[in-house]
Amino acid sequence: MSVPSQVKVVLLGLGVVGSGVARALMAKAESYSQRVGVPLVLRRVLERDPSRLRFVPLDPSLLTADPEEALEEDCDIVIEVLGGEHPAYDFIKQSLLRGRYVVTANKEVMAKHGPELLTLAGKAGTDILYEASVGGGIPIISPLKRDLAANEISGLRAIINGTTNYILTCMSREGMEFDAALRQAQELGYAERQPANDIEGHDAVYKLAILSSLAFRTRVGPDDVYREGITRLSPRDFRYARELGYVIKLLAVARRDEGVLQVRVHPALLPEAELLAKVDGVLNAVQVEGDLVGRVLFQGAGAGASPTSSAIMADVLDAARSIVQDSRPAPWRYTEDMAVQPMSELVSRYYIRMEVADRPGVLAGIARCFGDNAVSIASVIQKETDEAAQTAELVVMTHGAREAAVQTSIAQIQGLEQVRQVGNLLRVED
Amino acid sequence: MSVPSQVKVVLLGLGVVGSGVARALMAKAESYSQRVGVPLVLRRVLERDPSRLRFVPLDPSLLTADPEEALEEDCDIVIEVLGGEHPAYDFIKQSLLRGRYVVTANKEVMAKHGPELLTLAGKAGTDILYEASVGGGIPIISPLKRDLAANEISGLRAIINGTTNYILTCMSREGMEFDAALRQAQELGYAERQPANDIEGHDAVYKLAILSSLAFRTRVGPDDVYREGITRLSPRDFRYARELGYVIKLLAVARRDEGVLQVRVHPALLPEAELLAKVDGVLNAVQVEGDLVGRVLFQGAGAGASPTSSAIMADVLDAARSIVQDSRPAPWRYTEDMAVQPMSELVSRYYIRMEVADRPGVLAGIARCFGDNAVSIASVIQKETDEAAQTAELVVMTHGAREAAVQTSIAQIQGLEQVRQVGNLLRVED
Repeated sequence: MSVPSQVKVVLLGLGVVGSGVARALMAKAESYSQRVGVPLVLRRVLERDPSRLRFVPLDPSLLTADPEEALEEDCDIVIEVLGGEHPAYDFIKQSLLRGRYVVTANKEVMAKHGPELLTLAGKAGTDILYEASVGGGIPIISPLKRDLAANEISGLRAIINGTTNYILTCMSREGMEFDAALRQAQELGYAERQPANDIEGHDAVYKLAILSSLAFRTRVGPDDVYREGITRLSPRDFRYARELGYVIKLLAVARRDEGVLQVRVHPALLPEAELLAKVDGVLNAVQVEGDLVGRVLFQGAGAGASPTSSAIMADVLDAARSIVQDSRPAPWRYTEDMAVQPMSELVSRYYIRMEVADRPGVLAGIARCFGDNAVSIASVIQKETDEAAQTAELVVMTHGAREAAVQTSIAQIQGLEQVRQVGNLLRVED
Repeated sequence: MSVPSQVKVVLLGLGVVGSGVARALMAKAESYSQRVGVPLVLRRVLERDPSRLRFVPLDPSLLTADPEEALEEDCDIVIEVLGGEHPAYDFIKQSLLRGRYVVTANKEVMAKHGPELLTLAGKAGTDILYEASVGGGIPIISPLKRDLAANEISGLRAIINGTTNYILTCMSREGMEFDAALRQAQELGYAERQPANDIEGHDAVYKLAILSSLAFRTRVGPDDVYREGITRLSPRDFRYARELGYVIKLLAVARRDEGVLQVRVHPALLPEAELLAKVDGVLNAVQVEGDLVGRVLFQGAGAGASPTSSAIMADVLDAARSIVQDSRPAPWRYTEDMAVQPMSELVSRYYIRMEVADRPGVLAGIARCFGDNAVSIASVIQKETDEAAQTAELVVMTHGAREAAVQTSIAQIQGLEQVRQVGNLLRVED
């Protein structure tokens, strides 16, 4: 075996993250060369917009707007930071078929096509590395692959969308309404102008599909994941939650129980003493539970050009060392597809906020609906009363109950004459 | 290249951790075999006390009390969980010289001899893996080696001794005196009967030497690390700290500043809003700061048979995959030895608690001592007064000042007639 004199890299995309990667490759060339043994050489950059060179002082002759030219360039590692499903998926596939290592930050592609691409990479004797697809610079893919490999993972809970965590932190700390908090996040560049991908939970769903496929060595796709966004939360929910000793977070939860998987993304009440409850602002955190290790938590900046470059370059250095040492990557092995539990079978405690007529007998009607469905009430608190409208607000906490039974109860309660509306229903994660 | 039909393992030590490793090897044999591609086979266990078999149902014929017999056994991986410097160091060295992979949980050996053993392993074409030497099951060695490899690490701060963190949590939450908290920790098995190694900070020093050698790719030995234990803390310090918005933790701090290293273990005031300030009880956490990633935090159980086995077995699986794939381990490369900053040159803010005569003019004398040494006072709070003894307690917070100047001031203050004693001096970590 002869050691190559350099490792050749092609970069697909020179957006915010791509520029960060290009800057790191240039600024740290000497240190990376030392770590790999030979230099990393950037051979080609796919980017249609030449004005992007303002942000990175690259040799303009490296730039091409033609995907074929970039993909046909002789190289060892392809870094994909285009984002979105297409054409990124096709470019990754072509690169793997050519025997190249692929390093990607693409959560949508990995969530939808990860198992297929990993299998393809294994057959081609190469690898696809995707640390940057979840949690920005926080190491989480590699710990699941390597550091926790001796464990059976029983579950994970994560705050993996910085935009929504920022909005929820504003609502909780400053009592802001959702719309105002979203606007503030947009002004600060934490939320996009079209924010649905974040606030409706799609982004977190992609990331949870990736994490749970890896943690449980199976295939979990985005469609397997239950999803609920944060748009229905009101500052009152945060206030009531706090009185009860909880915070509200958009949680991504995966759990394995006797071969059945729970995978869900929704806002949830989390006891305020939990370390995960203290992860505020744009920070991300992932808590993993294994049979040997117990609970471990990984926390840091979940987005941004620099943190994401940290993850991408860790994968690039890893791939480069494999190339220099001519070592075969370990192929992806997943076990049988596991059944995903329907959301209706979830057993959880519930927080339910209702606006009701401020009259005797209301509670009896509500309690009967719950009782008829075998949902046991743990506590009822009457909150603010609106004397003019003659309405009161009730917060009900249930004991552990099946989701289906709770939803049936809610439907019946909404039919009660004295109930103005059911304001919100949140699950409690203990 | 032919793939071996099995990976042969020798275990040195069947104490608490060794038993955990043996149990994992047996209980998870099938899953580990799948992950490696071939079975892991335990060939020999070095242990003098056959009664240890009560805790692990091993074939008694695997046991030997003779080190030579264990070391000469034909094998691929040696797991060292004897603890202590000797004979563990010698056994590790012999194993590496025989071309075996070594997996160790031995912080003392790695802190004192890590660079030498890593160099030796590189020359022998093998590797020594030591994830379990710091932070139990929390992945930290591997993230520093791999996941954060694209970063220049500027510093790290860690709570890496569970015993002392448990004692400090008791003192803080329940106002317990140090001796009572230590006794409680001993009763619960969190502290040893001879607790000096933990409470005087030696254990944390070993771990910090290992982490900083790796983070800064240099050689930091235990003697390079400044060390101060927790025995001088009083419940009052926690109370006053809390009033000022701080908690007190035994911190291990390493920082690189213009090629000079700070490495120190001592109790410190930490702002209560920091995530590290919320790591309580026997938990451990390590916060690493890199130029790309910013701050990332790793948190979990820092000790115990199961978490430690998780780390050991991750290293074993990694070594086994390298053996099966016949890939050469990346040799350890460290750069020039960096200068360690003398503690006297540290610049920090300080918390100083003093017992003084409750008389006019006392503060003037104290302030003069600080002023003469160019130490600027940020605030002075007069705390409890003992009317019978006619004494009062003063808490001084300084602005950033050099350690040498503060120590000189303290010496002069202790000479003042009206000063009964300087109760404690703590550094503030912002």
